[in-house]
Amino acid sequence: MALVTLYMSDRDPQKRTFTDKKEADAHDKKLELAENIQCFIENNLEELSETQCEKLAMLIAENKERFLTALKGKPEVLSETDAEPDDIDNGKESSAENVTKIAG
Amino acid sequence: MALVTLYMSDRDPQKRTFTDKKEADAHDKKLELAENIQCFIENNLEELSETQCEKLAMLIAENKERFLTALKGKPEVLSETDAEPDDIDNGKESSAENVTKIAG
Repeated sequence: MALVTLYMSDRDPQKRTFTDKKEADAHDKKLELAENIQCFIENNLEELSETQCEKLAMLIAENKERFLTALKGKPEVLSETDAEPDDIDNGKESSAENVTKIAG
Repeated sequence: MALVTLYMSDRDPQKRTFTDKKEADAHDKKLELAENIQCFIENNLEELSETQCEKLAMLIAENKERFLTALKGKPEVLSETDAEPDDIDNGKESSAENVTKIAG
C-alpha cells in the first residue's frame, strides 16, 4: 500500500487537497489574500452583505495579476475582457488533475 | 485682473478644479482607475447595484497603494487599520487648499 502525500489549506472551507505543494501553497495564499480583502471591504462598506464581500474579495484575489497591472498604471486591463482567473481554480470544481476529492 | 489657471478632470461628476496640475492629474488617474474597477466588478458580479460597484471601486482606487502592497504579497496590510485613503481627497469635500469650488 503506497502513501500519497496531500496538501490542504486550513483556510479552505471546501477542504480541497493538492498533491502538488506549490499549487497548494498558491491556493492558500489566494485564500489569505481574499480573507484580508473581505475584511477590508467589510470594515469600510457596511452596506454590503458578508456573502457579497466574500465574492468580491475572491473575484479580486483570483484576478490578482490583472488588478496589479491596473493599479500599477494600466487600468484599462480591467475592462478588456471578462474575468479569466489567473489560474484554473476559480472556486468551482477545480479541474486541476491532481486535486483529490476525499468523500466525506 | 489676473488670470488663474484651473485644472479639472472631465471624469469628475463633482467638477472639482485644481490649481496644481500634478494634483489634478493624480485625481484624474484615480477616477480613471475607479471607472475601470467599477466596470470589472459590474461585469463579473451582477448582484451588486451600480452605486455599490461605484463605492467599492472608489474605495479601492483611493487605497491603491495599500492594495498594491497586499497584492504583492503582504495581504495583512488590508486588515491593519481602517481605510485611510492614500491622499486627502476621499470624495467628500476635498480639503485641499487649492481646490476652487466654482458655484454652479
